[in-house]
Amino acid sequence: MSSHSSEKQPQSLTRRHWLAGTGLALSAAGLSGFSKTAMAQAAATAAAPKPLPPFANWKTADAMIVHSSSTIELKRSAFGSSVITPSEKLFIRNNLPTPDAAIVADRDAWVLQVEGVKKPASFSLKQLRAMGVESVTTVLQCSGNGRGFFPSKPSGTPWQVGAAGCVVWSGVPVKALIEACGGVADGMAFMTGTGGEKLPEGVDPKSLIVERSMPLKAFEDAILAWELNGSPLPLAHGGPLRLIVPGYTGVNNIKYIKRLAFTSTQTEAKIQKHGYRITAAGQESSPNDPSVWEMPVKSWITAPLADNGELSAGQTVIQGVAFGGVHAVKLVEVSADGGKSWHKARFFGPDMGKYAWRQFSVTLPLSAGAHKLVSRATDTAGNVQPEQRLENAHGYNNNSWADHAVSVTVAA
Amino acid sequence: MSSHSSEKQPQSLTRRHWLAGTGLALSAAGLSGFSKTAMAQAAATAAAPKPLPPFANWKTADAMIVHSSSTIELKRSAFGSSVITPSEKLFIRNNLPTPDAAIVADRDAWVLQVEGVKKPASFSLKQLRAMGVESVTTVLQCSGNGRGFFPSKPSGTPWQVGAAGCVVWSGVPVKALIEACGGVADGMAFMTGTGGEKLPEGVDPKSLIVERSMPLKAFEDAILAWELNGSPLPLAHGGPLRLIVPGYTGVNNIKYIKRLAFTSTQTEAKIQKHGYRITAAGQESSPNDPSVWEMPVKSWITAPLADNGELSAGQTVIQGVAFGGVHAVKLVEVSADGGKSWHKARFFGPDMGKYAWRQFSVTLPLSAGAHKLVSRATDTAGNVQPEQRLENAHGYNNNSWADHAVSVTVAA
Repeated sequence: MSSHSSEKQPQSLTRRHWLAGTGLALSAAGLSGFSKTAMAQAAATAAAPKPLPPFANWKTADAMIVHSSSTIELKRSAFGSSVITPSEKLFIRNNLPTPDAAIVADRDAWVLQVEGVKKPASFSLKQLRAMGVESVTTVLQCSGNGRGFFPSKPSGTPWQVGAAGCVVWSGVPVKALIEACGGVADGMAFMTGTGGEKLPEGVDPKSLIVERSMPLKAFEDAILAWELNGSPLPLAHGGPLRLIVPGYTGVNNIKYIKRLAFTSTQTEAKIQKHGYRITAAGQESSPNDPSVWEMPVKSWITAPLADNGELSAGQTVIQGVAFGGVHAVKLVEVSADGGKSWHKARFFGPDMGKYAWRQFSVTLPLSAGAHKLVSRATDTAGNVQPEQRLENAHGYNNNSWADHAVSVTVAA
Repeated sequence: MSSHSSEKQPQSLTRRHWLAGTGLALSAAGLSGFSKTAMAQAAATAAAPKPLPPFANWKTADAMIVHSSSTIELKRSAFGSSVITPSEKLFIRNNLPTPDAAIVADRDAWVLQVEGVKKPASFSLKQLRAMGVESVTTVLQCSGNGRGFFPSKPSGTPWQVGAAGCVVWSGVPVKALIEACGGVADGMAFMTGTGGEKLPEGVDPKSLIVERSMPLKAFEDAILAWELNGSPLPLAHGGPLRLIVPGYTGVNNIKYIKRLAFTSTQTEAKIQKHGYRITAAGQESSPNDPSVWEMPVKSWITAPLADNGELSAGQTVIQGVAFGGVHAVKLVEVSADGGKSWHKARFFGPDMGKYAWRQFSVTLPLSAGAHKLVSRATDTAGNVQPEQRLENAHGYNNNSWADHAVSVTVAA
């Protein structure tokens, strides 16, 4: 199995990686997009903070943790209290090298192919804009967010909480597109999106292509987005056009989407067949393992944190974020003693719909000494954030409240 | 009457302005903060786009219109479709020079004095943070937004639609502060906020200070905000601490607030007594004229615009923003024939509360030729956006739908 097509292996995407992964001698011409900077970064010591890569140099540097040029996380201290994650603070996780900026030079010229409908067709982004506009707020979260808390240290980026953000997308509803194409063709069970990344020549495309299938019902609230947080969708986040599937983990939200197909079976792409599956620890992934699709209910505390400076004894505002994937979150409880006793938190700020996260806060008296702060969310379907993570080989979908605890010390 | 204390006279805030306005010979030492850049800019031709001033150089340059170093507007084409205005696109209108960045170096040390309460007290920002957190989405709009459409050309910045944005603020509710201070003292009828700008020596502070009074009831949903759109409140927008009064025009949202007082009368500051009042055209402002407080119901179209590129005949998505000040907006109608016939628009995207704006859209068939697009909003109190502006000497509160029309030409 390739180490490139699945999220569990973070790539610095150097020439060496590609050669190792494909077993082919690729010509230099086939390697455009793989930067020397990334190679230099890989050579740097792990201790030195890595700089932002050029395609993401507009991010707020001091709010981010750069794992590699394609895996960039938001610091736990930088979520803020205002529901929306500014684009400059949104994490990045790319499965393939970011395409050339030329693809956002003339956004309206981008073309999407639609298949598996009664009247297959191609649409330019300009044509899509004329089909209507919708706006949806979603939690975008990497499938591996929280992997860093697995003691088993699964391979892949050791994300803590920051491979997630809550952002507003605008574009055309997939429903409107389906309607324009005469409806979904008979017998289709999946929605399949294909990314427009350029693949190297001479390699089986299925081994590298970012192509994901998800249950057909996922189209209901999906949109094809050309805007993020009020600005044209940046290249770093999939511009000019990205498939947004509310409530589904990041990888299902196909960047630079060039093909949207309704299919009777799941794609044969490796990223679907073997990648992003909940596989028992120590086992090889198989297409029979559950695919990583809907996000489970989850919450974490964002303040106070151990590194927030000196905490004084007394009433303390504890706050965080909570979401339920495809269900709204309905309750958050907070404990200051590691889960022995719980206090109901209140939601504050705007409710941006069921796919958004809610900010919560509770004010508790903290005495001098050490405290273990944890939060536990419940969604409207009755799912409760579990104490323990679901152990799995690649460290996906970690929503354990125990893993997300914060230890703080209050001054005497 | 000074030309400095009221919003109707945009300032480049050069030495000459101060001297002219105060009639005093100020020493160079008293002029720190007034940049030579501003003077150079004033000397530049009106036709050349002005650069962003240093304190706001993080704004999205190509989305902004720089009227002066203290008056910066968002282009009508740059509002986007995602409800929230990114901080990089939020307009700037400063009544006084922006304080030194030193005031945001140690945010927690900022001190607010609270008066006119049963137990007057001072609070550091660190103490305010421990009192609770709330988050509110508001339309922030300059009192003079739309002044540029007055044929009478009132003095002041000729804003079109871009001295407005919809943003999320987080901080402590004023109510919580009042509670901590034992309640509002008896007999108080106004909430008065005082800005922390440094004033030049030897000048009557009342002639320049940014101090505004508003009806006591305004405290109900007001917050003292330390965060804008998920990041620490930038200096350019009033950081470290700003009074946010939802539904009230921009000037009432006091930047760098250093004093919050409950008072029996309105402040004697010139900006209150003579500034920001609805005065009959051709008259001098008097304290008997209505103060510019709550925003009236308003909407405008953001797309398509004449400069949006070539429009093709056929179904066209027309979109815009609408808000009702202290009331939610409940209806928007759109006309493609300058107001002869109207079509109900639909709201789309998240509803962020009654003080936020809503995005609206309607799809109409546009034939080849010229069309005049207008929108008309109605709020939940039944107020309807009027066809005609309320004529007034200084060009405040323009919500005329006719003034906000967009003329587009559709290709044959």
